[in-house]
Amino acid sequence: MKKCTDYSRRRFFRNAGLGAAAITGLPALLSSCAGKSSKPAGLEDLFQEGHVILFQGDSITDAGRNRNREMPNDAGSFGFGYANLIASRLLGTMPQKKLVIHNRGISGNKVYQLAERWQKDCIDLNPDVVSILIGVNDYWHFRLGRYDGTPEVFENDYRQLLTRTKEALPGVQLVICEPFVLPDTSAVDASWMEPFSAYRRSAARLAEASGAIWVPFQEAFNAGMNLAPASYWAVDGVHPSMAGAQLMAETWLKALLV
Amino acid sequence: MKKCTDYSRRRFFRNAGLGAAAITGLPALLSSCAGKSSKPAGLEDLFQEGHVILFQGDSITDAGRNRNREMPNDAGSFGFGYANLIASRLLGTMPQKKLVIHNRGISGNKVYQLAERWQKDCIDLNPDVVSILIGVNDYWHFRLGRYDGTPEVFENDYRQLLTRTKEALPGVQLVICEPFVLPDTSAVDASWMEPFSAYRRSAARLAEASGAIWVPFQEAFNAGMNLAPASYWAVDGVHPSMAGAQLMAETWLKALLV
Repeated sequence: MKKCTDYSRRRFFRNAGLGAAAITGLPALLSSCAGKSSKPAGLEDLFQEGHVILFQGDSITDAGRNRNREMPNDAGSFGFGYANLIASRLLGTMPQKKLVIHNRGISGNKVYQLAERWQKDCIDLNPDVVSILIGVNDYWHFRLGRYDGTPEVFENDYRQLLTRTKEALPGVQLVICEPFVLPDTSAVDASWMEPFSAYRRSAARLAEASGAIWVPFQEAFNAGMNLAPASYWAVDGVHPSMAGAQLMAETWLKALLV
Repeated sequence: MKKCTDYSRRRFFRNAGLGAAAITGLPALLSSCAGKSSKPAGLEDLFQEGHVILFQGDSITDAGRNRNREMPNDAGSFGFGYANLIASRLLGTMPQKKLVIHNRGISGNKVYQLAERWQKDCIDLNPDVVSILIGVNDYWHFRLGRYDGTPEVFENDYRQLLTRTKEALPGVQLVICEPFVLPDTSAVDASWMEPFSAYRRSAARLAEASGAIWVPFQEAFNAGMNLAPASYWAVDGVHPSMAGAQLMAETWLKALLV
């Protein structure tokens, strides 16, 4: 999935005009893969001056943000979650890039609810990078009998959303985050894992088909659970702790660099 | 100030029983300084399992935390500032240390107001590491005519607070953060810099005298202002942006490692 020949990734890196990649005349990722540069790609190489980055999703992205503000690069508008940690890292370490970073996650959202507000909360912001984390409510609310969307509905709705995004924003770099759950927690038990895996596989297929960067959150949490109990990373198995948000931020940043 | 012979730092590192330092039988910092270990000290070497870390200060530390919760390791209880970024980093990268991290900053506080609540909001938490950022309101409120404390009052009050802390918590590692302001912003102009420097010097003297780790925030922001305007780091010159909070977190972590 992270093939060096991925067209969307090439485009993303080709846009990064100010980094080492531009100096060599080759996209950083490609030059790294081809062994033509000894300098690994860094975050500096990924973003062009003035790039607009959007985080989209459900409560995990929302993370208590003040939805009355919705200002870019503003802590209160970002909430307490992984999007804040990532945005703070990007803004603090690359001041010269003048990045503009938004959070538009809304608690409780399923993929069709992203679609309902996509014009206002994505397209109109004209983002260069769109990171999406969605899926846990699509399963959770289905499991609870509050929603009749099947995994197939999820995948079809998600595919349409991505197609629409690429049509409206031809140069956009998509980042698709793996939805995840942690068993042996207050809300999630082992019986979630098999049915929920369908949603994870859907997201992975769509990432591959759309040339998105894939962020393997479930894999990261599985590794984390070898070091500390699931509840250390997310008390209810869905909403990450501070440690869980940090694990997500590191995983997201690493996915962009690989 | 960051001398390898600093007694308090030795003690801090000697407590770190699970890291590389313990393996060599020497405190990591000392062994690094003496050239007896090729492995530099990392965060892993600084903290012992179960260490309790406390962030104390004013609105910069408070950063919108929910004061009705005041739970350790809890994002809502931490607000949006540098303390959240540091705590997330420590908790996310060292799950096996089972760290317990508190934020007890309160907006508007001056040093005497820390003293008023120090038993409840510091001593009773029995911290192993206490990080303090205080001083901007001591000057700001004095400048506004709302407080009659001089720089001498600040230094004396602060010295008493530190003495009291070390008496009540003999093994504590103090971390004293440099108070800072950024001129050419909405609340701070150049006329602040000279009178405010007295507070910075007081904090530095007390850090040295008490064997605290010194975190040079003003120096970090001065360097940052070479890369982006002051308002990028703090719109009003006092309360950091996301970028400013990130800069503080990196500076704090680096100060512990040096």
